[in-house]
Amino acid sequence: MGRILRILGAAVALAAGVGATTRGTCALASESVAVTASHLGQRALDDPAAFDFVAALTTEIGPRLAGTDAHRRAVAWAEGRLKAAGFENVHSEPFSISAWIRGAESADIEGPVPQHLAVTALGGSVATDAGGIEAEISLFRTYDDLLAAAPGSLNGKIAVVTQRMVRAQDGSGYGAANPIRRYGPSEAAKRGAVGYLLRSLGTDSHRLPHTGALNYADGAPRIPAAALSIPDAEQLERLAALGPVRIRLVLRPSAQENAPSWNVVGEIKGSERPDQIVLIGGHLDSWDLGTGATDDGAGMAIVFGAARLIAGLPQRPSRTIRLVLFGAEEMNFSAAAYAKAHEAEAGQIVVAGEADFGARNVYSVQLPGGAAGSDFGHTLQRVIAPLGANVDRRPALFGGDDIGELQKAGVPVASLRQDGLDYFDTHHTADDTLDKIDPKQLGQAVAVWSAFVYLAAASDVDFRSLAATAK
Amino acid sequence: MGRILRILGAAVALAAGVGATTRGTCALASESVAVTASHLGQRALDDPAAFDFVAALTTEIGPRLAGTDAHRRAVAWAEGRLKAAGFENVHSEPFSISAWIRGAESADIEGPVPQHLAVTALGGSVATDAGGIEAEISLFRTYDDLLAAAPGSLNGKIAVVTQRMVRAQDGSGYGAANPIRRYGPSEAAKRGAVGYLLRSLGTDSHRLPHTGALNYADGAPRIPAAALSIPDAEQLERLAALGPVRIRLVLRPSAQENAPSWNVVGEIKGSERPDQIVLIGGHLDSWDLGTGATDDGAGMAIVFGAARLIAGLPQRPSRTIRLVLFGAEEMNFSAAAYAKAHEAEAGQIVVAGEADFGARNVYSVQLPGGAAGSDFGHTLQRVIAPLGANVDRRPALFGGDDIGELQKAGVPVASLRQDGLDYFDTHHTADDTLDKIDPKQLGQAVAVWSAFVYLAAASDVDFRSLAATAK
Repeated sequence: MGRILRILGAAVALAAGVGATTRGTCALASESVAVTASHLGQRALDDPAAFDFVAALTTEIGPRLAGTDAHRRAVAWAEGRLKAAGFENVHSEPFSISAWIRGAESADIEGPVPQHLAVTALGGSVATDAGGIEAEISLFRTYDDLLAAAPGSLNGKIAVVTQRMVRAQDGSGYGAANPIRRYGPSEAAKRGAVGYLLRSLGTDSHRLPHTGALNYADGAPRIPAAALSIPDAEQLERLAALGPVRIRLVLRPSAQENAPSWNVVGEIKGSERPDQIVLIGGHLDSWDLGTGATDDGAGMAIVFGAARLIAGLPQRPSRTIRLVLFGAEEMNFSAAAYAKAHEAEAGQIVVAGEADFGARNVYSVQLPGGAAGSDFGHTLQRVIAPLGANVDRRPALFGGDDIGELQKAGVPVASLRQDGLDYFDTHHTADDTLDKIDPKQLGQAVAVWSAFVYLAAASDVDFRSLAATAK
Repeated sequence: MGRILRILGAAVALAAGVGATTRGTCALASESVAVTASHLGQRALDDPAAFDFVAALTTEIGPRLAGTDAHRRAVAWAEGRLKAAGFENVHSEPFSISAWIRGAESADIEGPVPQHLAVTALGGSVATDAGGIEAEISLFRTYDDLLAAAPGSLNGKIAVVTQRMVRAQDGSGYGAANPIRRYGPSEAAKRGAVGYLLRSLGTDSHRLPHTGALNYADGAPRIPAAALSIPDAEQLERLAALGPVRIRLVLRPSAQENAPSWNVVGEIKGSERPDQIVLIGGHLDSWDLGTGATDDGAGMAIVFGAARLIAGLPQRPSRTIRLVLFGAEEMNFSAAAYAKAHEAEAGQIVVAGEADFGARNVYSVQLPGGAAGSDFGHTLQRVIAPLGANVDRRPALFGGDDIGELQKAGVPVASLRQDGLDYFDTHHTADDTLDKIDPKQLGQAVAVWSAFVYLAAASDVDFRSLAATAK
């Protein structure tokens, strides 16, 4: 393997017209693999297929929350799209979810003076009754302040947490703030609160709140919970500084157990080792507020576009490329469903990667441990450098929510890092629409993905051995 | 007059430390006027009063559509604020309006597949019945295309106009697009349409539609009319290209004739010629969707901040400065009410100016005809150049909606042009909130206004004579 990849490195250098430090003997077949990876990347930059995919999905289907008719339509749409693009073994794999469907929702300041607030229920929130709940707020500027509140101190109150989320290219601000949304409702309930509001986990300043799933803790009352738009959270901070604030909160979602969902699959069968699988994916479900353009129409479009370019080559790579469009990422059901259904197959998955971080360019690729310094890593670096991306020296610790369970089962994961500086401006809001996608940046992401996927599928790289060697 | 202003020019040049071409004899009183104007401008840059005004108004009152209880609260709030800031003769002048109050509103694509659209009713729109109207759309990419449609060609249809509004620093894109909103509903109705939707008059890409008033034409059926958010208008363009689109439109506003409104007035009485009035204003009413921060909390804050600085001087200017917070600009009632009530006084108004174009810096001042090249114009130029603003060589053709009727009655108007490149991103939307205001830019606008107002009030400039001489 090492020798083949050294050869690839030299071939890429030749293909790119760079004076190469030849590290091995050139073999025509291997040269063509590396050259092909470079050519794929260049072609991807102007290939309209990825943008067409997300434009058609968001226009013809629109929002597609798991468990809704719209999601069912999206599954049929995706199967048709994969078949038309030449994917093989196109099918949908069913699984069950607890569906959650948004209903009427509103929040209004009742005093000191009436004002409307822009809110949206968190995914999984219980409902209020039709008239809602009216209560005074207790406002906390940080989540730690809430956690420091004594039991009983929020009795009868609506707890409000207005901690700011940090803007960061790598999305680390979201990870740090996530507990405020996921666990805040139960932490407030443990302290007596009857409702929960948080400043949206977002980096914009628009009156469009960011939804997202919560996780109720066992043993705490389940209280209704919603996100405030960022200007509304700041308005509450100013009002709370002046005196008591009373809010009426109405949230009328509903839940349905054992609702159906599907992971949609399509493959490009490997020419020599079809049982070895390079698994790539995105998620087909979306929140209901926008049209799921950047989350995750774009991610699917990127991996679809990359695989489709490879499918169109005169010669297939030796390994199978499997595209999975996961069916219920937002409420965290598809990862376990897929991993369980494919438990026996985990050892055959060479590497897994998921695109679920918007529509902007890939600036770095994190490979499984031990691979960055390998010949595979060096070759990939040479192929993607002209595209404006690097191989990160640090290994991928996380590949995406939908492949997290595969990773636990021992599957190596890669993380193609997209520029997320503005991802959380529209994430989980009504503003996640097609106009937010720049086709040129999307094309660059397709380019880096196509190079990575092709090199992984056309080589015999063994990430498990590289990781073992590195230890 | 000419000589006094020549003296001012020299004084300002001295004050600014610039080697002056002395055009007249220095008189201490006049020198101090020019120096004071410069000092006022410098002080205004860091004066927090204007930002505090708009922060308090948008927080403590919030939206304040004319004819609502909130507007009534805003009137009382404004009177209190003016009194506390040392204005004299603070009072409110009542007048009657036809109030229009938003109700439930929604638009949903019923076919080819269900999708929700972000819409908001236009001010003045009639209501649908509770179930709304469902109809196929006829989509026009330009307003001219709609106007070219034959009578009867839109029978039973909802007309949709998706013409784009142009982004321009001087707001000229809004003026050009305005007929699409104001007159489009009646033009569509004349051709048989039962409903009307337009792409919001805005320059953003958010799911927050822009409201604004319409004007029904006599003799055309009054049909319900609403604005689509810009991403929704683009979604309809894509869907309409694929086949017929049916929409259900529900708009439930209500109207009330003879509702009360008020123009709130405060003065800084002139020390020598109190009957000569420099009239400055903004408008107190706001659309109901946001908190009226940039439209027109900021405008009021700017003229309030400028007048307040002048009121705090050890010596008052010779003329009276009258601050008018107009009570119903958005539905176009306050201009006529004010002009009619003050018809007899029009000849005493030296100049009128209105700040109603957001919260950004003033980049140019348009004076009444003939004044730009006068000594007043030269002096003002020297005072405001260090603030980053110019006197425009072109005269002010328009000073603001609320002073339009005064202008017709012969009152000279000035137009202090603010940078409006992003004004129409949030104009008339839920996004018009305090976070959109940069205190530093607001301070610059206060600085230019304070210099202009002080020079007009402390000199004996006669804009009517300058205009007559220039002809």
